[in-house]
This record gives sequence, structure tokens and C-alpha cells, in this order.
Amino acid sequence: MKTLVPLTPTIEYSNKKVRLIDQTYLPIEEKYIITDDYKEVCAAIYRLSIRGAPAIGVAGAYASVLVSDSINTNDKKSFLDQFLAKTNEIANTRPTAINLRWAVKKMQQKAENFDGKVVELKLELLELAHEIKKDDINRCHNLCLNGSDLISDNSNVMTICNTGGLATSGIGTALGVIQYAHSKGKDLKVFVCETRPLLQGARLNIWELKRTNTPFSLMTDSMAAQAMKNLNINGIFVGADRIAANGDTANKIGTYSLAVLAKHHKIPFYVAAPLSTVDYDTLSGINIPVEKRSVKEITRIKNIPITDENIEALTPAFDITPAELITGIITEKGVAKFPYKNSLGKLK
Amino acid sequence: MKTLVPLTPTIEYSNKKVRLIDQTYLPIEEKYIITDDYKEVCAAIYRLSIRGAPAIGVAGAYASVLVSDSINTNDKKSFLDQFLAKTNEIANTRPTAINLRWAVKKMQQKAENFDGKVVELKLELLELAHEIKKDDINRCHNLCLNGSDLISDNSNVMTICNTGGLATSGIGTALGVIQYAHSKGKDLKVFVCETRPLLQGARLNIWELKRTNTPFSLMTDSMAAQAMKNLNINGIFVGADRIAANGDTANKIGTYSLAVLAKHHKIPFYVAAPLSTVDYDTLSGINIPVEKRSVKEITRIKNIPITDENIEALTPAFDITPAELITGIITEKGVAKFPYKNSLGKLK
Repeated sequence: MKTLVPLTPTIEYSNKKVRLIDQTYLPIEEKYIITDDYKEVCAAIYRLSIRGAPAIGVAGAYASVLVSDSINTNDKKSFLDQFLAKTNEIANTRPTAINLRWAVKKMQQKAENFDGKVVELKLELLELAHEIKKDDINRCHNLCLNGSDLISDNSNVMTICNTGGLATSGIGTALGVIQYAHSKGKDLKVFVCETRPLLQGARLNIWELKRTNTPFSLMTDSMAAQAMKNLNINGIFVGADRIAANGDTANKIGTYSLAVLAKHHKIPFYVAAPLSTVDYDTLSGINIPVEKRSVKEITRIKNIPITDENIEALTPAFDITPAELITGIITEKGVAKFPYKNSLGKLK
Repeated sequence: MKTLVPLTPTIEYSNKKVRLIDQTYLPIEEKYIITDDYKEVCAAIYRLSIRGAPAIGVAGAYASVLVSDSINTNDKKSFLDQFLAKTNEIANTRPTAINLRWAVKKMQQKAENFDGKVVELKLELLELAHEIKKDDINRCHNLCLNGSDLISDNSNVMTICNTGGLATSGIGTALGVIQYAHSKGKDLKVFVCETRPLLQGARLNIWELKRTNTPFSLMTDSMAAQAMKNLNINGIFVGADRIAANGDTANKIGTYSLAVLAKHHKIPFYVAAPLSTVDYDTLSGINIPVEKRSVKEITRIKNIPITDENIEALTPAFDITPAELITGIITEKGVAKFPYKNSLGKLK
């Protein structure tokens, strides 16, 4: 079976430049960022031009390659000092998704442990970044095979945020599972939460679902409960930015709400994520740092003020869903079940 | 004690014209609609330039006066035919809020039962519209006195949509209760759900809360669950567009979601509405018609497309919260408790 890849690459590296589709303009415009400056990649990660935990892991790896490319020295110590300082900047661009730190740390460890010339190390770092991307594609592929068994023919499924090809280098996690099930001939409809504040559901899922001819209906996040009650929803599928060792899951703000609503309506609630999203060093959700964003993301939509801007607002980018509300965690090595400390531990 | 009235009148009638603040522009601009054409009032109701169940009841009454003003005949039968036909148009502008039908029906019954000259009837109809408005002001006043006892000092409360002065002719229902409690010296903070799609929370509550110096924090609707879990929320207060005889409540889409989340987090969930919102002829929520709106309200924000517009979307303006999730229904005659068939029945 051919490895499943997305219709449009989320991020690529060639000729010493990174090329990524700027997701802030989708679906209305398709624009690309092409740069050899790691700071531009950091800015793109911060403003969500590229987003999705697995995708920003790969972006972190390629941004590290741009750092490596830019250091003009043959002195190993000097190279390493600069490389570590600048790649730390990359790792700190966004705090919640563990994949970013995970990928940058892999690049840093390669550099620290390398025994050879700087010119050779640069080639190895590029090779490692390519491996991280390829690894992400493979993890998505296997995860989608595992997850699609959980979707029956004639299903209505619900999702939040974008977890398709745009969120990874492969075909995605939660939305990947759904699209793969549809591509295998299962009749289904996707109920898409728009995902305020930045509308990844309304913008990015719609773009992906139209391109794969998957039936869907868009809705505001506030419609999820009534939809669960009235529209015969058979499963909720969401991604993850970081999963603690006990299964508590940080994901886009609104995910915890869906999990509570799913419990009330007795609907299975699945998290789909590669094991690179599991942070075995974080014991529970309480230890996951939740990024706070700008108040402007609440008071503006597409940079147009919707209300008085001189106000206080809540700005968490993520929430934490406790493990006991999660029916299963779909990974590339199988579907883990509660208690997750054991089941995720075995997949490590 | 002085009757509590809002800082700005939501709707007024003088010199044969209706004047209303156009709520679609708030809080960024304060614009007014001044018209002697009932069709303009109908259009204002449809596009939510005036909204809130009690307020559109009053708007329906004054629009009926404009109809009456415009009929040039002294023939009673001819007047009645025209009056009933045109006021039926008003009643059908929006289907869910019962207050609109309730107020228009009162005007129609006055006309049908009046025994006198057309010129006298016209004066009586105007008098009745003024009474309906005054009645709304008094109901809000008493409702807020009853409800504010439910808010303790040092409280965090949550609300959705706008249910303050702008939603009524008085000081409001759910937001009125909160603002009245604050005005009596109770220390509190309001967590305001922005209320997609039309952002009544983000736009109108912020405008009202700033003018009364009531502390608040705005949030997306998707943040409600996490806020309930982490921010020590002591009570949820919402309004109603129609309450069935058994207590099932139609209110802004997203209300049912808050009710389920409140149950999970063991937070009291109150509906605040005048008894004119109770439809004793509708036995349960399943019989309440839920208005569907345009897909453009989902795909556009402030008339700017946020996504591909050629898509399917869910568009309910309201959802139904089952009576068993409601801790109490705050009315001008007291706070009803489950089972509501008895408790609301006694207040009738």
C-alpha cells in the first residue's frame, strides 16, 4: 500500500529555503512563504501561518536547518553555541505543542553528539530534518489506518480545529482518520466546529474537505451540543497538542467542552495523535503549560474589530481534557484505552 | 423605590415615528433608525437591529401602531382587514420569541373587540402599545429584584447573548439581574460568551457593562467549559425567547451547551424571563419552532467572508434547554423551580 500523503505539502525544504503554505489566508487565498531566515519561520509559527502540533514539529526541524545553513564557521564549538541559542528561540515560539520541542531537541542532540566537521554536521542535520518529516508522514499513515476502523459506514462525526494534512506533513490525525475512512468508501458526514477565535475549522477543514469531496456541514462551536442531541452524531474525533503520561490531553480551546458534551450525550470521544505528541515526562494535564494569546484575537476577526477593543478577555489557545473523558487515543501503534498510563506506556 | 430603567431607551414612539437604536452597529457606532413605516421595523427585527424577546414584543406593538397610523379609512371593517393582515406580517417576522406574537395579538384583540370609531381605536391602540412597554419595564424591574438575591457577594457569573436593557424596554432580564446585583454593591465579575454567530455578547453586553462599570471578561463560546472548571463560576444566568409550559426553554444557540456544562461542573443554571415569555399553550420544547437563519451569518462576520461561502452550514438561531437542566426560572412574580408545570402554572 502506498504511503498516504496530503494533496498539497504543508512544508518543504529545497535550495536552502523553506516553503510553506500560509494558512492564515486559507481558504480564500493560497499564498506561500518562501524564506531562508529561521526568524521568519518562527514568526510564521507564532501567528499560525503554519500550525498543528506535528506540522510545527517539522517546521521546527527545518527552521533549525536554516539556522545551521546561516552559521558561517568551521569551528565546532562556535557553531554549537550559535546553533543551540538560535534553535532554543525556535523551540520557545509556542509553549504547548510538545512536538516542536521534541523535534528541535532531536536536532540539538544530533549537533551536540556529532563527532566530525561542521560541514558534515550540516548535511546530517538536513538529513535528520527530512527524517523527522518522513517519520511524521508515516506516523499519520499508520494512525489513520488504526483510527478509520472506529468509523462505521453511514456515520456522522464531529471535529474541532484542523487536524488534516495542513496540521501535519502527512494526511493528518483526527481529520486524516475521517478523510481516510471516507476515501475507503464509508458514507459519512463531518460536522465541523468553526473553532473560534482563529477559525481553523471554518477555514482549513472546509478547504481540505472540499478538495477530497467529503460531505460536511459547518457550524459555530456553540451549536455542538444541540447537534449532538439532534443529529445522531456517532463519534467525536479531535487532535492533540500535548498528551500527558496519564492521557490528559491539551488541544484547541473548545475540545474539553466537546468531551463533556460527548459524555452527556453518550457519544464516543477519540483523540488522534502520533506518539511524538505524548509527553511521557509530564505526568498529568495540570503540568501542561497553556499558551495565552493576544486579546486582539478575541476582539478582532480577520483583523477587523468586532467590538470595543479596550477590554479584558480570556485568551487561552488550548484547554485540557481529562483522560477519563477520552474513549480512546488513536496512535500509529494502536488505540490506547483508559487507564492511559499503562496503555500509552506500552506503546512508547 | 424608583422603577429601574435602562440608560438608553431601546425603542420609543413619538410624533408618529418609531425610534430605535440600531444594535447591529454597537458598540462601535451608535446609530438610530427613525421611521413611520412598519415594514422598516419588520426589517429591523429580522436583521436583529432590535432583538431580545421582550424588546421585539414592544417593537411589534409600536409597529402595529405605525400600521394603524397608516390606514386611511373611517370604515371599521376596512380598517380591521388591513390592520390584521399587516400586523400578521409583523408577528411572522421571527418565529421563536413568543413575546412578539403575544404583543401583536394583544393589539389585534384590542382592534377586534373595540366598539367605537376608527379614530378612537387608533388612540386606544397607541395607549395599549405604551402600556405594553410600561408593563415590560415593570416586569424587568421586579424580575431583577427577585433574581439578584441569587447572586452572592464576590461572585463570578457567566452569561450568553445580550439580555440587558437592549433586549427589553426595562433594565433587562438575565444581564439585568447581574447588573442590578452589582449596582446594589455586590462584588462580582461577568464572564461573557461572545455568542456566535452574531456576537451579541461581544458587542452588546460589553457596551452595557462598560456603561455601568460592571467588571467583566469576554471569551469565545468555546472557552465556557474550561472557565467553569478553573475560574470558580458560581452561577450561569441566561434569558429566554420562549419557555414551554413544562419549563423547556428556547434561547440563543449555545444556551443548551452551557446548561449541560453547568450540570457537569455542578453550577446553578438560571433562566430569567418575564412571564410574557412563557407560552402556556406549548407543552414542551419539542413544540417550539426554532428559527433557521442564513448560511451567510455563519460564513461571514460583519459581512466579511471568513471562509468559502459555497458550503453547507447549520443555522439554528436557538436551541432548547430541557427543564431538568434548569435550576430555577426567575420571573417578575418569583423564582419557579422544577417541576415547572406546577410552579410556572401557579405564577400564571
